[in-house]
Parts: sequence; structure tokens; C-alpha cells
Amino acid sequence: MRPWNFSAGPSVLPLEVLQQAAAEMSDWHSTGMSVMEMSHRSKEFMQIRDEAEADLRELLGVSDDFAVLFLQGGAQAQNALVPMNLLGLGPARKADYVVSGSWSSRSAQEATHYGDIHIAASSQAPTEQWGSFAYFPTPDSWQLREDASYVHVCSNETIGGVEFNDWPKLERPLVVDGSSNILSRPFNFAHIDALYAGAQKNAGPSGVTLVVVRRSLLGHADQQCPSVFNYTSLDAQHSMVNTPPTYAIYMAGLVYKWLKAQGGVEAMQARNQAKAELLYNYLDQTDFYANHVAPEARSRMNIPFLLHDASLDALFLQHAEQAGLLQLKGHKSVGGMRASIYNAMPLEGVQALVEFMKEFERRHG
Amino acid sequence: MRPWNFSAGPSVLPLEVLQQAAAEMSDWHSTGMSVMEMSHRSKEFMQIRDEAEADLRELLGVSDDFAVLFLQGGAQAQNALVPMNLLGLGPARKADYVVSGSWSSRSAQEATHYGDIHIAASSQAPTEQWGSFAYFPTPDSWQLREDASYVHVCSNETIGGVEFNDWPKLERPLVVDGSSNILSRPFNFAHIDALYAGAQKNAGPSGVTLVVVRRSLLGHADQQCPSVFNYTSLDAQHSMVNTPPTYAIYMAGLVYKWLKAQGGVEAMQARNQAKAELLYNYLDQTDFYANHVAPEARSRMNIPFLLHDASLDALFLQHAEQAGLLQLKGHKSVGGMRASIYNAMPLEGVQALVEFMKEFERRHG
Repeated sequence: MRPWNFSAGPSVLPLEVLQQAAAEMSDWHSTGMSVMEMSHRSKEFMQIRDEAEADLRELLGVSDDFAVLFLQGGAQAQNALVPMNLLGLGPARKADYVVSGSWSSRSAQEATHYGDIHIAASSQAPTEQWGSFAYFPTPDSWQLREDASYVHVCSNETIGGVEFNDWPKLERPLVVDGSSNILSRPFNFAHIDALYAGAQKNAGPSGVTLVVVRRSLLGHADQQCPSVFNYTSLDAQHSMVNTPPTYAIYMAGLVYKWLKAQGGVEAMQARNQAKAELLYNYLDQTDFYANHVAPEARSRMNIPFLLHDASLDALFLQHAEQAGLLQLKGHKSVGGMRASIYNAMPLEGVQALVEFMKEFERRHG
Repeated sequence: MRPWNFSAGPSVLPLEVLQQAAAEMSDWHSTGMSVMEMSHRSKEFMQIRDEAEADLRELLGVSDDFAVLFLQGGAQAQNALVPMNLLGLGPARKADYVVSGSWSSRSAQEATHYGDIHIAASSQAPTEQWGSFAYFPTPDSWQLREDASYVHVCSNETIGGVEFNDWPKLERPLVVDGSSNILSRPFNFAHIDALYAGAQKNAGPSGVTLVVVRRSLLGHADQQCPSVFNYTSLDAQHSMVNTPPTYAIYMAGLVYKWLKAQGGVEAMQARNQAKAELLYNYLDQTDFYANHVAPEARSRMNIPFLLHDASLDALFLQHAEQAGLLQLKGHKSVGGMRASIYNAMPLEGVQALVEFMKEFERRHG
């Protein structure tokens, strides 16, 4: 049996998808070519790309009011490219950022190179009840400026383990970094105006970045925005301003088809909810382990937890690996453990983790 | 037998490399993980990345005086990122561009958004003997400015089919777009200061871009250069400012190992020379087909050719495909045919093409 892989990203992929990719590697659909060997302008690759976009639109439920783009550079490139493409929506070049953890902090910091950036809310400061970045700044606390070009929020912080999905309808365009929970649940695109996401958590391999942006926001890119990252040009040229990351798009497309076969994002939401509850319920009933995130902000994707005795951390990781439970080490900035349980992690994997944790507690508690 | 794939890029890969990738797809080296599923910070992926860099350094013959970086965005992203990283070498923000075809034209055009760009030489104007972009502006014709931050040249133009490799030693840093002939022959890094290349011709799949840059040129990036594309940060963080395109790096690494097994770039140069001569020799002894590039500038990578009777083009392509000779259609801007014969195209493929061309001439000449 394959081990269970809890990597925060790049992360586990459905085995069926990997097996199909292996089978098609040297000869895609009797063309005599690997997908990697196809001109990106060939009819074969255009079919792969078009199907990927159509499946992604169906999964996300976005209409032709939105462009759906495949880019390179990862979500962190978008920390610069969102401002370069969207700050020009207003003459003041202002944007408001909600800071809920490490990733949104970096987004806000990078944006300062391009315009007037304001922190609309932040959970960096601990409250009486919750630690730094262990809760989510709720919309009633967001201090928004009337002339901001957009408001930026991260929907899931992989390091702190907080998640947010209660999108308010704002006066200004709402831009979401959805890298780590896109396609794990429905997103409300009636209230969201742009979303970007690296693919390597829930939506494919690293090397392709999704941008979904309301077409009414296009046409305002800075002249200094690199041509290949100009949303308007990308939309006009079907994400083919230059050679796209063809194989990563193909792999993402296979994941989209797998997601559709699972029942789409509503079905994934139910599965992800069940997986997360299994682990949180156990964490809440033991003193041996602890998760310190405010319950209403707990991520269903990335569940950090600490052992009550940190001197057992190394032993825990060693025994976990021997038991076929991989990549559970927490991010170095917070320590402890982290279980990332994205779409491709089945319930059985979380059950195996909880069983292992119980056994480890029994032996060392 | 596999068909022969003459795509200009993404292009043919060694079959052994594809077969190895397929065999390792679900379980790399008994780790129980696909390369796509590994954290980019895991020891397994770091090993893959480090080996790829070491093999690439060995193949190119570059010392630690150079940074060797793996980026995303393709060579066209570098049209913006080279200026953003290197124009700041001089206070005047000047750069001189040699224009030898479609790709270097685009490079020069994009650079104008970032500084004072001067066309040092251009082969766009036809001469009495040669058509537009059918010859290469030789270094004695380059009009360089003393205070330029760098001089930019494209070493192979895939559309016009011209190639240049006689690098002069300049007073200013020499920056080369080597996308379509990197690793097909030795490059003189005593005279070259920076080189960038999309991988999808001679060096792997699309989705990863190589940048080789002399470390003495680092430290001058514009503040508006996106963090993930800052050469200095990339060098300091081993190309891991953010999640790199892990699978594309792995595939490129497999191609590097294949190139080493073939005897390295000197051996590839001999093979590529023999392949190109076979086709050019035939083109020069028939009136049925023609290549109109100045002999001293002829590309050994991309060989455009015209049928004397363009009304036969569609029939040629149809019969070629039936004979297992794929993706021979010329670029739409020049018409006719184009045979791209990169590293992974064996001599047998070019022999099959020439035999087919002779037979087609016999029937329709």
C-alpha cells in the first residue's frame, strides 16, 4: 500500500491520476507523442487546455463574466502581479489587505512596491483568548477605504491553520488568494471578483497558477507588468501569450476530471469536513496533543498540532514515517506537527493518522 | 515505431527519459511518492534539484562564478525580467539589443518599458542578397553604447532559422537568449555573462526556465521586480524563493543525465551538425525545395524550407503525417515548412525526412 502523504504542498495526488499519466506518458491517445512533446498550438494540446478550462469553470461555477487563466510563477508571483494588473483600477493606486497569517503578510508586503497599501485588519496581535494568527479577522473589523482598487484576503493560511469562507459583498473588488483551499469547497463568485491559486495543494502539480478574474476588471494593467503576466492579454490569447506549462496544465486537467467524478466541490466539501472533524474531535478530547486555533477559524485543509511534550516530536515523526505517515513535520516557524489533508487525502488516511496518534499517546502519555 | 516529431517546441524528448518518468510516476525511488507529491523542501526533492543543477553546470561548463537558476515564466518572461534585474547595473538604465528575428525583436520591444533601449544592429532590412531576418548581424556591425548596462543577443531564431555562436568579448555584459540552442553545442561562458532559456527545446519540458548569470552582476534588481523573479534572491535561496516547478525540474534533470550519457554538448554538437548538413545538403541540390537563409547563419536547430509550388504545401503535410513525420508546418509568419531537429531528434529521423522529401519530389516534381 502507498504511504499516507500529509505534505503541505506540493502534496498528494489521486493515485488514479498518476497511473493514467504514467500510462499516457510516451503516447497520448495514440498520437505517438507525449503531452510534453506537443506544440502548445497543436490541436491535441488545445483540446487538453480547452477541456481543463471547461472542467475548471464547471467545478468553480464561474460564468463567462470571468476569465479563467493558467499562468506560471506560483501564488507568490501574484503578490506582485495582482497589484500590477489591478491597482490601476483606481487613480489613487490604493489597495486594502486583510492579514491573517504568513501568506497574506507576504502579499501585503510585496504589494507596497506598487502602490498605497493599507492593512485593513490583522490577526497578528494575540487576543486575550487566541494567539497570533490563530483566529481570523472577521469582516466587521475590516477598515476599508472608499477609493481602494481592491480588497485582498487569503482564504486559508497553511502555516497558522486558519480558514475563511464567509465572503461579504463589498463595494470594492474582492481578491482572494485561494491557493490552499480552492476546489475543496464551493466559493461564492457572486461576492469574489478575482481569485488566484497555485495548483499544488488541491488542484494539481506545482508549476501552474490559476487566476480567475472578473472580465470587467481587465484593461488596467501597468505598462511595467511583464507581457506574459498581463491578465488582459492572457484572456485574449487563451493563456497562450507564450508557451504555457503544458504538462502541468494536463495534470491539473486530469485532477479536475477526477474531482468531477467524485461529485464536484460540494462532495469534496462534505468529505473534507468529515476528515477534519475526525482529527479535530480527537485533538479536542486529549491533553497529549493540542490545536490552538479558534474553533470557528479552524482550517479543514491544514491542521497544525503540538505534542504536550515537545521532546517527543522527533520520536513521533520517526515512528509516523515507519507507520507510513509521511511529511507531518510542522512549519519551522510554528514547530510541532501539521497534517495537510487536501482533496486527494482520503478519509482512510486521516483514520490511519488518528489511530497512530492514539497508539503513540497510549505508549508515551 | 514512434513517429518523428519535428515540433519547434515543446518538442521531442528522448524516449528513454519518458519511459523512466512513466516508471517512476507513482513511486520515486521507493519513497511511496510521485516527484509531484514531494514537498519542495523535502530531502528527496532537494536531491533531485541539486543533481539537476550539478549536471547542468557540468554540461555548460560554468563555474561558481555563475548562479544557475530554475525559474518559471518561459523565456518571454525574461524579456521583462532581464531588464528588471540588470538595467540597474548602470545609472543610465541603458541596454543595447541586437535584433536578428522575431524573438529578439520582442525582447527589445518589451525592454523599452524599463529603460533606454537602443537597437545596436538589426537584420530586419533585406540586403541585396538576403531577405529580412535571413542573415545575422555580425559583431563588427553592432553599434554599442559605452554606458549600456548590457548587450542582448538571441543565439538562435526559431522562426527565421538563423543561429549565431561566435561570441565576441565585449566591454559590457553580454546577455544571451539561448532558448532554442542551449545544450546543443558548447557556449563560451568566458564571453557570455548571462544566458536564459526556456527548457522546452533541447533541455526538457515547458514550465521551467534556466537562467545562468555571472554572480558579479547580481544585487541590482529593481524594487518592482517581483520577489520570486529576483535573481539575487533566487541565487541565495537555491531557486526556492517559492515553490518551484518541481516536476519540470525533475524532467529537465533526466534530460541532463541523458545528455551526459550521450557524451555531453561536444558530442551533441557533432550529431546536430551531421543532422543539419544532411538536410541542408539535400535542400541545396534540389529546386523543388529551398531554404533562403545565408549559409553562414543557418540554424542547425530549426530549418525552414519552402516548396517551389506552395499549392503543394497541404498535400506535403498530409503525406508527411501519414508517413509518421509530425509537426512540420512552418510558422504562420513565414509559411512553408520547418523541421526542428533538436538534441532529442536522432539522425534516423532526419534521414526519414529527407527520404520522404525525395520521394515527394519524385512524385510531384
